[in-house]
Amino acid sequence: MTQAFNPRTGEPVGREVPDSSATEVSAAIARAQDCAQWLADLPHNRRAELLHALATALRDNETSLVELADAETALGDRRLTGELARSAAQLDMFADVLDDGAFCEAVIDHADPQAVPPHTDLRRMLVPLGPVAVFAASNFPFAFSVAGGDTASALAAGCPVVVKAHPSHPNLSVRTAELLSATLEKVGAPSGVLEIVHGHEAGTLLVTDPRITAVGFTGSTRGGRALFDLACSRPDPIPFYGELGSINPVVVTEAALSRRAGEIATGLVGSFTLGAGQFCTKPGAVFVPAGQGFADRVVEAVGDTEPAPLLNAKIRDGYLAGVTALGSAPGVRTVLAPRTGTGYSVYPAVFTVDATTFVERIDLLAEECFGPSTVIVEYSSAEELAGALAALPGSLTASLHAEPVDPPAAELLATLRKKVGRVIFNGWPTGVAVTWSQHHGGPWPSTTVPLHTSVGATAIRRFMRPVTFQDVPDGLLPEALREDNPLGIPRRVDGVLR
Amino acid sequence: MTQAFNPRTGEPVGREVPDSSATEVSAAIARAQDCAQWLADLPHNRRAELLHALATALRDNETSLVELADAETALGDRRLTGELARSAAQLDMFADVLDDGAFCEAVIDHADPQAVPPHTDLRRMLVPLGPVAVFAASNFPFAFSVAGGDTASALAAGCPVVVKAHPSHPNLSVRTAELLSATLEKVGAPSGVLEIVHGHEAGTLLVTDPRITAVGFTGSTRGGRALFDLACSRPDPIPFYGELGSINPVVVTEAALSRRAGEIATGLVGSFTLGAGQFCTKPGAVFVPAGQGFADRVVEAVGDTEPAPLLNAKIRDGYLAGVTALGSAPGVRTVLAPRTGTGYSVYPAVFTVDATTFVERIDLLAEECFGPSTVIVEYSSAEELAGALAALPGSLTASLHAEPVDPPAAELLATLRKKVGRVIFNGWPTGVAVTWSQHHGGPWPSTTVPLHTSVGATAIRRFMRPVTFQDVPDGLLPEALREDNPLGIPRRVDGVLR
Repeated sequence: MTQAFNPRTGEPVGREVPDSSATEVSAAIARAQDCAQWLADLPHNRRAELLHALATALRDNETSLVELADAETALGDRRLTGELARSAAQLDMFADVLDDGAFCEAVIDHADPQAVPPHTDLRRMLVPLGPVAVFAASNFPFAFSVAGGDTASALAAGCPVVVKAHPSHPNLSVRTAELLSATLEKVGAPSGVLEIVHGHEAGTLLVTDPRITAVGFTGSTRGGRALFDLACSRPDPIPFYGELGSINPVVVTEAALSRRAGEIATGLVGSFTLGAGQFCTKPGAVFVPAGQGFADRVVEAVGDTEPAPLLNAKIRDGYLAGVTALGSAPGVRTVLAPRTGTGYSVYPAVFTVDATTFVERIDLLAEECFGPSTVIVEYSSAEELAGALAALPGSLTASLHAEPVDPPAAELLATLRKKVGRVIFNGWPTGVAVTWSQHHGGPWPSTTVPLHTSVGATAIRRFMRPVTFQDVPDGLLPEALREDNPLGIPRRVDGVLR
Repeated sequence: MTQAFNPRTGEPVGREVPDSSATEVSAAIARAQDCAQWLADLPHNRRAELLHALATALRDNETSLVELADAETALGDRRLTGELARSAAQLDMFADVLDDGAFCEAVIDHADPQAVPPHTDLRRMLVPLGPVAVFAASNFPFAFSVAGGDTASALAAGCPVVVKAHPSHPNLSVRTAELLSATLEKVGAPSGVLEIVHGHEAGTLLVTDPRITAVGFTGSTRGGRALFDLACSRPDPIPFYGELGSINPVVVTEAALSRRAGEIATGLVGSFTLGAGQFCTKPGAVFVPAGQGFADRVVEAVGDTEPAPLLNAKIRDGYLAGVTALGSAPGVRTVLAPRTGTGYSVYPAVFTVDATTFVERIDLLAEECFGPSTVIVEYSSAEELAGALAALPGSLTASLHAEPVDPPAAELLATLRKKVGRVIFNGWPTGVAVTWSQHHGGPWPSTTVPLHTSVGATAIRRFMRPVTFQDVPDGLLPEALREDNPLGIPRRVDGVLR
């Protein structure tokens, strides 16, 4: 049974949702598998219409969905309304990606007897993998949950989705799934295109079921690693796209700090306390020149910020354990001590450490602490900074605050981009735009596969694989590969992009 | 120590090559890591020149390399000369891929305050992963070895390569590495761009070393699975691109068999005995209508085919064990019994089985048997064929022999493409062209990651990961992403491919 709690009070909210039995999980996967061919064969434009219909369903039910989400997450109407809009826009974007057509990567090489070695007619495109399991996250009840990016990109790829609901917002999950399923039925889809299951055991069953072809996951490093290991140890391993923990380093140059210390401190506080610090892109380590009093500025910028509720008791307990470990580590100074409020609420916490100690205690200090805390790492020289950055694990993002003419900037950017999937100049990592060019991924432990993104147009690629057709008659080819290009999509023909 | 043997005689050939010590392996990886930034920063056109230089070095040393290769592999001058040319052409092709520029997938989204949610300037491209380990294969001493496709695509991606030499052709491996290293030095590359190590233990050290960022592997399912498990169980798992075992089903329709039985039998024999059956694309299961005497046609086409040497004693023993297991399985009829010749030579072997028994003994009958054998699976109805195809594991290829007007063809193609990375119409799977559109990959167990290919232009993508640059000033951006497109490469700008 899953029971949600109101994070503002800690009181139960909504009805209990039963765990899915093994039989129910298997039946959900069976339905997904049964409709896989239908979805794969659906013309791109019809698949795009389906995504638009889902987006419209979200928008049409904004009030009730946001209300339900707020009761279970306490993220607030404004944030949740924005997140719903973003999730709907994400579905629309994947429809645009389908309409554009480049996503299927059609490539044609006509027969060439002069080539070394000679070759016959070869045509390649991407096709859907098959049923996909999606693990919803706690911190984005819309954008990384039932109707989130993994679901949107898998459906766009042509893969049915079985969502493992997050136990932190079960009633919203059930309601969203009902809504999307009803919409799918209305546009003529068979059952199975979108399924939902509940409970820890259901998740394990999904990852190990031979009919599941890939997994999308957003969550903790510990939970993600366990599922990743399961996926890899199957008799037939499958891709596991996990977004796990990220420290999201921020580097401030001497020039930037001397000119804009106040502005940077305010920006930092806005970023690490946004959504109560429950973003995978929360800046968790901020490298600043020592002896400039930056920590004081940060404390000042925090001011009398209200406590904010964390999503559930487990996250609250994890946060408190994390900040307690930080605060008691030798060499770490607490400049703003962690405090709790009503329900699951906590106040922001801030720590400082010198760059040498940071490297010595990297396992603790570079581990994600989910919640409104950050560590200010003070460096006394370029060498000390370089040493600390070299020790960093992979992250989703890194940010650099520098001046327009700032000699260390180029090398710092070059160093940072080796570690991360997105580098940000004079900005903050929270806020992940859904665009063609977005990359929301990075080296381990920020993700399990650094080649892929869970946000942006290319997220679709995680759920597709190439097939090459050799000498197949035109009438038997998929439309995307036919000689006269009936879909009018961009293709590479005989080496030339058209 | 690695000692090669002449497959024609079983006598030792060439000098013993010592196993690399742990210190030597570590030093090789260190050199690779030290030059990783140099190679990553090398402009695409200079990286292309480097690949052309390597291709030229292969061609300039054709005679001595082919002689050395033939002594250790017995594949014959003609085949080896062709394979060397193909390997050189492959290096040239990746140079073309670099010159084309689309491989780095440059995408630019200018700031858009009207978007939902609004976004700032975002620019995405692919960058090299870092040092890559490449496990050479036995059966292609050029095309899947030191100078093979994994090496070529990793270097093209901008990743230094540490090759684990295959013990079956150690002297050729050493010589090839020396030649390529000397060439790299001549064009001004630092040491470390291409390294070579020897011995089983060296392979394990490569896969588990924290400085190695990805692995390319071609070999057996058992060996590949062991290394895949190692790569996945690292504290920081890395992508392991393994090409393992593949049965490569061939389906012949009733119409095709009634019209072209002789031609199909001849084609099949040519394909399954090519290179003594030592191709990952060897057709290992051929589905034909029962009662048409196709097996007799195949025996006739084999005729008095000379025995051909397998590459080494281990492969010979594995082949004999495989065909013995096939021959003694209940329901399997031996139509051409396995026989050995001098050295490691063997004769072709052919078996038949009915489709129902095939499904019952799928684990044995659909397992790759490396060498010149094939299993003819006789089906008595469309349903029986469908059942057998549904039971097949993943393969690199599937081939369909059908007539121009042949009602079952469309559905058979649709069924086959679910299982494989390449479908071939009225052709044979052996012979893998190196083109933009090639896909040499497929669902497990044919590869460990169905999204990727080890042959063709997109093989480069295995060794690159995306990075998005947010609001980074033009002067600090990589050239591929600068506003004026100084490289003149194809890019997607504000959603439009240019």
